Amino acid sequence: MSKKVFLCDDEMPTSWYNVAPDIPNGLQPPLDPETMQPMAPEKLAAIFPMGLLEQEMSPDRHIPIPEEVLEIYKIWRPSPLVRAFKLEQALGTKAKIFFKNEGVSPVGSHKPNSAVAQAYFNMREGVKRLATETGAGQWGSALAMATSMFGLKCKVYMVRVSYDQKPYRKSVMQTFGAEIVPSPSQYTNYGRSVLEQDPDNNGSLGIAISEALEDAVTSENTNYALGSVLNHVILHQTIIGLEAKKQMEIAGESPDVIVGCCGGGSNFAGLAVPFIPDKLEGKNIRLVGVEPASCPTMTEGKFAYDSGDTAGMTPLLQMHTLGHDFMPPGIHAGGLRYHGMAPIVSALVRENLVEPVNVHQLECFEAGVLFAKTEGIIPAPETCHAIRGAIVEATQNLNEPKTILFNFSGHGLIDMAAYDSYFAGELHNYSLPTEQIAESLANLPKVG
Amino acid sequence: MSKKVFLCDDEMPTSWYNVAPDIPNGLQPPLDPETMQPMAPEKLAAIFPMGLLEQEMSPDRHIPIPEEVLEIYKIWRPSPLVRAFKLEQALGTKAKIFFKNEGVSPVGSHKPNSAVAQAYFNMREGVKRLATETGAGQWGSALAMATSMFGLKCKVYMVRVSYDQKPYRKSVMQTFGAEIVPSPSQYTNYGRSVLEQDPDNNGSLGIAISEALEDAVTSENTNYALGSVLNHVILHQTIIGLEAKKQMEIAGESPDVIVGCCGGGSNFAGLAVPFIPDKLEGKNIRLVGVEPASCPTMTEGKFAYDSGDTAGMTPLLQMHTLGHDFMPPGIHAGGLRYHGMAPIVSALVRENLVEPVNVHQLECFEAGVLFAKTEGIIPAPETCHAIRGAIVEATQNLNEPKTILFNFSGHGLIDMAAYDSYFAGELHNYSLPTEQIAESLANLPKVG
Repeated sequence: MSKKVFLCDDEMPTSWYNVAPDIPNGLQPPLDPETMQPMAPEKLAAIFPMGLLEQEMSPDRHIPIPEEVLEIYKIWRPSPLVRAFKLEQALGTKAKIFFKNEGVSPVGSHKPNSAVAQAYFNMREGVKRLATETGAGQWGSALAMATSMFGLKCKVYMVRVSYDQKPYRKSVMQTFGAEIVPSPSQYTNYGRSVLEQDPDNNGSLGIAISEALEDAVTSENTNYALGSVLNHVILHQTIIGLEAKKQMEIAGESPDVIVGCCGGGSNFAGLAVPFIPDKLEGKNIRLVGVEPASCPTMTEGKFAYDSGDTAGMTPLLQMHTLGHDFMPPGIHAGGLRYHGMAPIVSALVRENLVEPVNVHQLECFEAGVLFAKTEGIIPAPETCHAIRGAIVEATQNLNEPKTILFNFSGHGLIDMAAYDSYFAGELHNYSLPTEQIAESLANLPKVG
Repeated sequence: MSKKVFLCDDEMPTSWYNVAPDIPNGLQPPLDPETMQPMAPEKLAAIFPMGLLEQEMSPDRHIPIPEEVLEIYKIWRPSPLVRAFKLEQALGTKAKIFFKNEGVSPVGSHKPNSAVAQAYFNMREGVKRLATETGAGQWGSALAMATSMFGLKCKVYMVRVSYDQKPYRKSVMQTFGAEIVPSPSQYTNYGRSVLEQDPDNNGSLGIAISEALEDAVTSENTNYALGSVLNHVILHQTIIGLEAKKQMEIAGESPDVIVGCCGGGSNFAGLAVPFIPDKLEGKNIRLVGVEPASCPTMTEGKFAYDSGDTAGMTPLLQMHTLGHDFMPPGIHAGGLRYHGMAPIVSALVRENLVEPVNVHQLECFEAGVLFAKTEGIIPAPETCHAIRGAIVEATQNLNEPKTILFNFSGHGLIDMAAYDSYFAGELHNYSLPTEQIAESLANLPKVG
């Protein structure tokens, strides 16, 4: 078989797949944090365009991708499906390892799949400006790119520790014309309140979300955009798995295991959920979500209603969570340091349709370096988690001829500082004290 | 028409195109700097494998690409051909602008097209280690990747100013297992002699080539590898133009103008020379090579025999040159700061088959930012020169419906410091004093 399967332009899927109606026992609605009742759509309409809200709640399995979004996807999509022959050889495994390379996008990750769609639906409804947050910088870069292409303004609240450590991420967003500020910032009431208590606060995704939300609610013509977690974000990311399914068929292969790294859950779900219908029909496919041991949302968190941000401004979502004030250790995979997990992924874990595992960061970087040396592409620290997961699957029994498909969610070329630290021996693994998790779980909102 | 034309794997060319036999009045042979006679192939065999030397001198138009090289190409090739609709709209031009996106390669540029081939032919002949130089870092990254995939060791002499300014480039090469030293270094006689005269010497491509050559000649089982200029490098890069020709045909288009940036000449020639046979048959296609005004090799240099390095160790090549001790100003497009130009490109300029133009760096960054904001991809500073060239072509007469094809040679995600300087207003244009060029041209080797 060939090294790679490309789809041609006219073979690219023209609809996204909405897994929500296929989840056994379904999804529970988001709750209004003020009333603890299901959130009224009008309230969400203050920060999201109707086009996205309809997707968020849609009972339809297939939702057409607008022509304008398809045209931009085609700058880099369909993305290649590649067989990792040299990695297989290095491992000495009989498993076949395929990866879907989302690193070929303009900003090097899967994030534009949703950023382009979100910018489009906001533009279509006359919104002029988006506020968002970014941790590692992948989402901020993607939304900055997407808004520039649709003529929207964009303000990015970037977790301060990333803002300071990743100057080039900032430059990428600035090149696209976005405004970037470190979070916590002086630009919002919530940011100022955090800085008042702790002027040296390093920030967190939860704080940055609170700031971006406040910005969206209080600024004119401004909506909010989130890069993972929500149903519509996962919907947009299903383009990955829909393409991969076609490509695996062309390769004459059928995956036994599908692997992805999980922060908020969107890249993993984007690849995995299009295989849910096959799984429900009895096909033997395992879906493995890999999270960091230092932020073990699915493996050690609770399935409960929790807030998506630190200030408690978001609707409460039923999901796996470590508690909205959980502060994970400073691992280099900034995109995986989130206290919650997408409600869709969480419900699939609940139904035993997704298997969560957690891995330590040193073995992830080891996997990433092996992948770079064999397949030539340096993975983002987040993606190293998926590679580690795939390697575990491929080496449990070297003689088992299974077929593994993982999501190469992004390249690491803008994150080389993490590799420097790894090679310098400065990184170590974190074992979380169980009390730390218990403590933040004790602060879950009281529901019902 | 669609946004993009992808070729499927089985449509990828399986031979490179050698333009040498199609150049009217041909190429003159390289000369031995000691005897001023044509270089004896045995002498070159001390630093290059026979497989590459045969390509360097081959009279054949079509040279098959080895299966092992094709398999690695297929990680990212065929690369997409994309229509820049949004850039066209922003310019208000009736011209159609297409670009060939070489930025999708593992290290983000066209360089792996030759690096993989060079590593392969060296490996096949039992070579264990390659020595090379790198300026901006694109070539070093590509060769580090390619050698790691074929199990060779790699030592990269990196121009010191880049070594100091681009720590992440270094990290990329280190991740692939290469050894990187700043040049001038203490590791070679030539490096030591330069440092003795000037301990703070910032280095140049010419010095780094001398060091890498000395390393190859004096180390066991070690060959030398060059990332541009030579015939076999351009041969490997023709995969770009061969794919693009097929893709333009599929799009139902025929280019009127082909544009690329020129440092050593390989990315421009790689896209352009496969169109030479059509041009010779009378088809009206212009081939425009864009170089920086601060290093105007083709537009203000001399067509003469000159050395490829500062120490005078390389064979003398007949080419456009500013003199081998020309020191260009420190523009940010490090890959375009070379005193010479590929003999193939130079001969095509001599025959009026290639039109050279030069552009200033500020207008190049302006073009790059416009491209990023409209097409979503941030170009490398070198690539900004090609974009500027394409924009000039598209805006000379906004109503002329011409078709422009340019080479998007690489993305800028690892070179964001250059954009930072641009946005901070720290960059300016350089006008070279004519005396400076006259002075270095006075030191050309005396031939015949």
